[in-house]
Amino acid sequence: MVDDTAFIFDTLVVVGPGLIGSSVLRRARAGHRLARRLIAVDSSPAVCQRVMELGIADEATTDAAAAAAQADCVMLCVPVGVMGDVAAQVLPFMRPGAVLTDVGSTKVSVIEAISPVLRADVPYVPSHPMAGTEFSGPDAGLVDLFENRWCLLTPLDNTPASAIEAVRELWQRCGARLREMTPAHHDRVCAIVSHLPHLLAFTICGTADDLAGETRSEVLDFAASGFRDFTRIAASDPVMWRDIFLANREALLEMLGRFMEDAQAMARAIRWGDADYIVDRIERGREIRKSLIEKQQA
Amino acid sequence: MVDDTAFIFDTLVVVGPGLIGSSVLRRARAGHRLARRLIAVDSSPAVCQRVMELGIADEATTDAAAAAAQADCVMLCVPVGVMGDVAAQVLPFMRPGAVLTDVGSTKVSVIEAISPVLRADVPYVPSHPMAGTEFSGPDAGLVDLFENRWCLLTPLDNTPASAIEAVRELWQRCGARLREMTPAHHDRVCAIVSHLPHLLAFTICGTADDLAGETRSEVLDFAASGFRDFTRIAASDPVMWRDIFLANREALLEMLGRFMEDAQAMARAIRWGDADYIVDRIERGREIRKSLIEKQQA
Repeated sequence: MVDDTAFIFDTLVVVGPGLIGSSVLRRARAGHRLARRLIAVDSSPAVCQRVMELGIADEATTDAAAAAAQADCVMLCVPVGVMGDVAAQVLPFMRPGAVLTDVGSTKVSVIEAISPVLRADVPYVPSHPMAGTEFSGPDAGLVDLFENRWCLLTPLDNTPASAIEAVRELWQRCGARLREMTPAHHDRVCAIVSHLPHLLAFTICGTADDLAGETRSEVLDFAASGFRDFTRIAASDPVMWRDIFLANREALLEMLGRFMEDAQAMARAIRWGDADYIVDRIERGREIRKSLIEKQQA
Repeated sequence: MVDDTAFIFDTLVVVGPGLIGSSVLRRARAGHRLARRLIAVDSSPAVCQRVMELGIADEATTDAAAAAAQADCVMLCVPVGVMGDVAAQVLPFMRPGAVLTDVGSTKVSVIEAISPVLRADVPYVPSHPMAGTEFSGPDAGLVDLFENRWCLLTPLDNTPASAIEAVRELWQRCGARLREMTPAHHDRVCAIVSHLPHLLAFTICGTADDLAGETRSEVLDFAASGFRDFTRIAASDPVMWRDIFLANREALLEMLGRFMEDAQAMARAIRWGDADYIVDRIERGREIRKSLIEKQQA
């Protein structure tokens, strides 16, 4: 059990002080006792300078190795496509017993990328704080970004309990609610609740964009009729989403495959006038909606 | 030009005082001078009684023919699947020169259903007020439901200008913005901005509902990550949507076909790691989103 009057870590190194990373730094700065000392690492000197201007770290550097050597915890907050490379840059320099964690939105591929360079004396706790906005970069962070949001932990079989507990405590002090699950299960859940909706939102925007001139402009005029709700989540960072789609390929393609079968079945019911089938599927949608309202998620 | 200090019609008959119909009645009651006298028609005596309790009509009756005989305007506010039958019940009893209008969400099929029973001496002005909530019935109506919402008129080649102008004025006094287009164009536009998004929302809810127990319940827990935005529009009335899907079959299947091609192309890009293609499609989604924000539709 971590004493919540003490700091969880002495020195916390955040690699990639973007939306998520700089939110953790802001939270640490706001007296939540995540760590006594905060170091931000970014490959861009301009980002490092901005972090210092914002006053959200004690030190900001482009030298990942030098920072890692001082860390009690290294938190990787970089796009999932480069997690493996960045882990390889910091792990050889970490002190025995220091904790490695990441915040990637997919877990199986990140764990696969990091596993080859893992060390037996550096516990690794994969995590995924389910929070975000459509903005990115060190200015986008918010001290309360994780408040009442879920953070999923997907520890490995050999991850020591003390390291899991420390990372759990860190996210709790960020305001998050915690849940543990296997990496594979995590990826399936995120594929249906987040990645597939985003893929569909991006796709329908593209479909509308391809329509001939007059209709295309009318899509914008009349978007309030439903289309608009779909575009709200289509504003997020393209590189981040490209990486997520590619990193969670298997689970996402499986969910998309199920969805496409269901959409084809709906198309067939519409073509052949199968009214009962259509009503049954619509009523299922309403049931899910009702459950969400009962869970106060709506 | 209609004098807006006078009533547009002497007697307005609203057939089907549900969400849309009872909102028009409420608007007329609120001093907007749509008509001097308001008659509601519904096949359900309970609905008629409720309309009188709510005080939103001078008379409420199950006798469509008797009401139609007194009308200067008959507005059909019934599901699109029964528009033809209801038109056949009222048209033979309407006075020469009285105006027939409807509020159906699809236009080609409604016009096809009504055309065989049309009379040369009864002008018909098809309309579609693009407004709604997830509620239905006479209690669901709102006096400001149409405020700043679009109402699309799809007049026929032989619809007299004076009848178009009267219906236009009615919706303007309801607070709506007007646009005229052909019925076929209307159905294509609504297929992409409204019917396809609803179909996809119902479908993804069904896909999630079919998942095995544990994942299914987690969809509800973690819905905030994108899924929730899709369910917001999946709460609407099943019979209304079944009718809309069937009534706008051609345009909806065409838009769904385009969407499925695009989703398949995205799936293929993810499977084969075509990062450029994925980024290009995501960026198009962001562009549409940006255009919406510039049009203050977001």
